[in-house]
Amino acid sequence: MTHPFDDAIRLEATSTHVRRGRTHPEWANMVGPFGGITAAVMLRAIESQPERVGEPLALTVNYAAPIADGDFDLSLRAARTNRTNQHWIAELSQDGGVKTTATALFAVRRDGWADTESAPPSVPDPEQLPATDPGLVQWTSLYDMRYVEGPMPGKNGQPSASSTTTLWVRDRAQRPVDYPALAALCDIFYPRIFLRRGRVIPAGTISLTTYFHADQQQLDGLGNDFVLCTAHANTFSGGYFDQSAEVWARDGVLLATTHQVVYFKG
Amino acid sequence: MTHPFDDAIRLEATSTHVRRGRTHPEWANMVGPFGGITAAVMLRAIESQPERVGEPLALTVNYAAPIADGDFDLSLRAARTNRTNQHWIAELSQDGGVKTTATALFAVRRDGWADTESAPPSVPDPEQLPATDPGLVQWTSLYDMRYVEGPMPGKNGQPSASSTTTLWVRDRAQRPVDYPALAALCDIFYPRIFLRRGRVIPAGTISLTTYFHADQQQLDGLGNDFVLCTAHANTFSGGYFDQSAEVWARDGVLLATTHQVVYFKG
Repeated sequence: MTHPFDDAIRLEATSTHVRRGRTHPEWANMVGPFGGITAAVMLRAIESQPERVGEPLALTVNYAAPIADGDFDLSLRAARTNRTNQHWIAELSQDGGVKTTATALFAVRRDGWADTESAPPSVPDPEQLPATDPGLVQWTSLYDMRYVEGPMPGKNGQPSASSTTTLWVRDRAQRPVDYPALAALCDIFYPRIFLRRGRVIPAGTISLTTYFHADQQQLDGLGNDFVLCTAHANTFSGGYFDQSAEVWARDGVLLATTHQVVYFKG
Repeated sequence: MTHPFDDAIRLEATSTHVRRGRTHPEWANMVGPFGGITAAVMLRAIESQPERVGEPLALTVNYAAPIADGDFDLSLRAARTNRTNQHWIAELSQDGGVKTTATALFAVRRDGWADTESAPPSVPDPEQLPATDPGLVQWTSLYDMRYVEGPMPGKNGQPSASSTTTLWVRDRAQRPVDYPALAALCDIFYPRIFLRRGRVIPAGTISLTTYFHADQQQLDGLGNDFVLCTAHANTFSGGYFDQSAEVWARDGVLLATTHQVVYFKG
């Protein structure tokens, strides 16, 4: 028995720089798969290239069109390889049509001066909070989510003055957190517009950028523990909003900062 | 007489989807050109494509290698065109070597529910603040910069506990702000590590993502006025840090939010 996450990021080589993957019904979102699993599979495809240099540092994924159920091809190219970093361009296509584009920066981390200036929100431990019932969409049941603030508005939801959501999350089957899993966790939040408007409205991420701060040792130290995720929007205008978010380890390590722009209707 | 900004973003078509530009000595940074002018020229190249749909919404620029003085070629491709948005991939190369990669999302803005949740910092008017002397690098003399907090540390600089810098900026020759100019303003900040360490150390942006919130009418309304720019880092680790920043109009309109990851030594 493999885990649904490992199933979803499994790829076969069809040529030197093309990998074939497929959608999995467990990861279904409103339309197409969960954006986080698409980010994860693109990162995994690059990570598994033999000429890859270093660890993930930055990933931008552009959701250009919905991915249909079934196979997809990932084409990968190292646009530039330097001594301590490497720049990748990736495209996910189906039947010759581009569905997702991405750039990724992999880099060698070095010891040196370090400081985390941001602070995690003050929150109760996840064990003190109830697990949320599975949400509107299939993939949410693969995670154990414990909301601290800003849960998804229900049937009689009211608009909130704040777009902030904070929750503890872990993989329900307790698969350890690696870089692809962290890439997926960065897209764990339902759209901020739901919270501000007090209801579910059509919305979807169109571009997602993640900066990975955790090194491999810090990821190994996480194991399958909960991580603390907090997100807010800065502005809603012209039918789009931006979201900035952080993913924290329980011991106060900032694992990733992540930003996205989302379209919404109404 | 054209303005140095317009000189720097001027391009010639060498084929349908290749544009040729060149570096300009006024825009020189420590190594190669100011990252902001490179972002601007890549955005301008896409903006001037006849099949372009909508206005800039998101831009990610990856600084893969220093751009040498002289000509460069920009290759552009619309990876996906939808009814209300379009996804571009761009690469800047010199002598066949990729120096910069980018993805850009252009989109049609629509009227609808809007709210700015973030607030600009409380600051004095730019007219009450002194203009900063030109900095270490050439391009800074093209802007009128008025620091509110966190100016660049001088010779006997001390480490600061905060990485926040806030300043008013305008083009010294008062060229109006358009999308390329806004893209450049998003990279106006010297590296946050200078402030935390109290001195200049080797550092450079390797990936920059900007979300454009202003519509064309809001840009037109700016004219050549000062804009308020504020930036901070979240974490410094492994020889890299992230920066998040905002660019505000004087009347409280959030023009852009922008994020970057920067390498540093020491």
